[in-house]
Amino acid sequence: MPDVSHLRINRDRLWQRLEAMSRFGATGAGGVNRQALTDEDRRGRECFLDWARAAGCTVRVDEIGNLFVRREGSDPSAPAVLTGSHLDTQPSGGNYDGIYGVLAGLEVIETLNDAHLQTRHPLEVVVWTNEEGCRFDTAMMGSAVWSGRMSLSDALALQDRKGTSVAEALAATGFEGSEPAQPQPVHAAFELHIEQGPVLEQEDKAIGVVQGVQHMSRHRLIVHGVEAHAGPTPMVGRKDPVQALAGMLPRLYALADEHAPEGRVTVGYIDTRPGSSNTVPGRVEFTVDLRHPDQSRYAAMVAALGTIASEVNKSLGLDYELSCFWEAPGVTFHPDCIAAVQAAVDMLGYSQRSIVSGAGHDACNVASVAPTSMIFIPCKDGLSHNEAESITQEQAGQGADVLLHAIINSAGVSA
Amino acid sequence: MPDVSHLRINRDRLWQRLEAMSRFGATGAGGVNRQALTDEDRRGRECFLDWARAAGCTVRVDEIGNLFVRREGSDPSAPAVLTGSHLDTQPSGGNYDGIYGVLAGLEVIETLNDAHLQTRHPLEVVVWTNEEGCRFDTAMMGSAVWSGRMSLSDALALQDRKGTSVAEALAATGFEGSEPAQPQPVHAAFELHIEQGPVLEQEDKAIGVVQGVQHMSRHRLIVHGVEAHAGPTPMVGRKDPVQALAGMLPRLYALADEHAPEGRVTVGYIDTRPGSSNTVPGRVEFTVDLRHPDQSRYAAMVAALGTIASEVNKSLGLDYELSCFWEAPGVTFHPDCIAAVQAAVDMLGYSQRSIVSGAGHDACNVASVAPTSMIFIPCKDGLSHNEAESITQEQAGQGADVLLHAIINSAGVSA
Repeated sequence: MPDVSHLRINRDRLWQRLEAMSRFGATGAGGVNRQALTDEDRRGRECFLDWARAAGCTVRVDEIGNLFVRREGSDPSAPAVLTGSHLDTQPSGGNYDGIYGVLAGLEVIETLNDAHLQTRHPLEVVVWTNEEGCRFDTAMMGSAVWSGRMSLSDALALQDRKGTSVAEALAATGFEGSEPAQPQPVHAAFELHIEQGPVLEQEDKAIGVVQGVQHMSRHRLIVHGVEAHAGPTPMVGRKDPVQALAGMLPRLYALADEHAPEGRVTVGYIDTRPGSSNTVPGRVEFTVDLRHPDQSRYAAMVAALGTIASEVNKSLGLDYELSCFWEAPGVTFHPDCIAAVQAAVDMLGYSQRSIVSGAGHDACNVASVAPTSMIFIPCKDGLSHNEAESITQEQAGQGADVLLHAIINSAGVSA
Repeated sequence: MPDVSHLRINRDRLWQRLEAMSRFGATGAGGVNRQALTDEDRRGRECFLDWARAAGCTVRVDEIGNLFVRREGSDPSAPAVLTGSHLDTQPSGGNYDGIYGVLAGLEVIETLNDAHLQTRHPLEVVVWTNEEGCRFDTAMMGSAVWSGRMSLSDALALQDRKGTSVAEALAATGFEGSEPAQPQPVHAAFELHIEQGPVLEQEDKAIGVVQGVQHMSRHRLIVHGVEAHAGPTPMVGRKDPVQALAGMLPRLYALADEHAPEGRVTVGYIDTRPGSSNTVPGRVEFTVDLRHPDQSRYAAMVAALGTIASEVNKSLGLDYELSCFWEAPGVTFHPDCIAAVQAAVDMLGYSQRSIVSGAGHDACNVASVAPTSMIFIPCKDGLSHNEAESITQEQAGQGADVLLHAIINSAGVSA
């Protein structure tokens, strides 16, 4: 194997492509609105495919619209090394979430082309369909279908708010592919992504070597009270569901403390009905998002939520409904993939730390069928899903360098 | 003065008119939607005026659409005894809030007609415009203008959500009267109303002799945090405004306990933004309604709200805005009016208790310019502002009997 330790990606080309891609669905406020399978998404995907074809890649599109662009390896029978992410965004999305992982994957291919290096394993850069789950309400949809975690028919039947199905949107954009949406043999998979959190920036680290993904779930609590006029109704005898909130919230934050520093508790949504300032609400609904990387601590947090809800509402004589409406089991990434990333960043000498992802990614689905890991770079103020999402050209380049060498470590190069 | 102690109102006639009025804006679910100065309100008012004219009354309409129907007294120079309430309702309103007080006032006139009794003071039954303040966002508007607490021009300029002004709605319904909206001399004023709370029903009392109205105010608290992804953002370093809610709510309910049993604290509205289950909110807004009949305790509660907001948000390093967006000073009713009601209920022998109103009423405005008091009757489960608002024919009759004799006590009768 030749010495490729000097190899670096072309930071200017990567940055220009990030800027070029940001024009599809640009909001005028520095962000993008390029929701899955819209015309903006179509144009972004076609631009990407033009670049990939110009780089000599072949293109496959599967039945759920996932795009695979392939650079052949020296061993035609070897399974591919897969990288990539997604090009779709939130309605007020940024220019890097997902996009960076896709374009950095393409940049790895360009860099290998420029260096006239062939890997032993073929390389594939994937664009997963509908990772964001905002237009069609299932996040990581394309990778879920591909990995067998969601049926193709369920995904095709999902509808947006206007009643357009995924099947119709695929047809309208020309991305209803013929390849079966199921895993091809994969030697290793790497997803490069912005952290979407503040840890790397706060600790001034260039690279996060991602070990896995937190266990996480979202719960809905509905507390039923009795609507009453705020004036004439004495406090004693009220059935006030906000009192349940008053009892539960402090205990929920105490639960996060108990499982610090990794435990996370978020109450993101609270709604009172009828929501009038002079009426005791008849109903309060709120959500509780629980996360922890450790399985047993995570399970303890979920159990504690049930106990807290039960004890507080029982003491107030209030009826309630507690339900888990979304759960994603944690993922431990593959040691070989983590080692390939670790070796790359050690060789490059970039500042680093090991990290656990707090958010879900397509890599979670891929990890269920193939050896997988992730690489994080910092993003400004930890902001993501936000038009103000921001990274520097240097951060982008360092992350792509790590992806390049992790892929080389995994795929091997011939002279 | 002749012995009129045997006199009772006609329960069937009163009940039939309550039923007839409930057809204007009937919701089909047992309630009414007869918001101020809508076509439904116009038809209800015209029906009332038809009844009043048939009972021999003269009609005046003032510049803000308040209706005064008058039965002459034996002393033409004596100031009127005023009774009445409002005919407008909430969007999902009941059949008695306000309406009962108006129709019972008319029933008093009918009963005096039937008995061929003339009072010394003239009697007037008033229908105040826009008491509910739901279509045009100022409660007790008509009585506020009449009593000089709100300017006529401000009231006429109020707009509904479609941009229609009060002036336009008065013209459209034909109720832009020519009488100045300002107090005529009033000898005494009585407002008969459902309690809108559970106290009389729970204690099985037919009549509440209302002594006054609680001090009350509504406050808005906006706590500013920083939006962050629920997954990748560690608990330490979050600027989570829901933590302010967790800190404040228990202290607010403790504040009500401290000022029990009359102190009342209601958090009726809570809103989180962006309101996503997996995003730490960047902003929480909630309302706090504070009430107490005692001035010094009420002032202590308002001060404590400021202290709690300051201490909790300071400890969390969060910015906040606290503002009082509505305040109604408490009212102590006139001893002569309370005595007239008390003498009536004692003579009638109905079960009774003295009570302080927890809600505001037109009588609060009237009390600022004339001797005033109120009479309460129970309503089922204390429910009001609700299609399920309910009273019995007997309760309605007893309350109207008390109104009749309070008015006779105040206005005097000649043989």
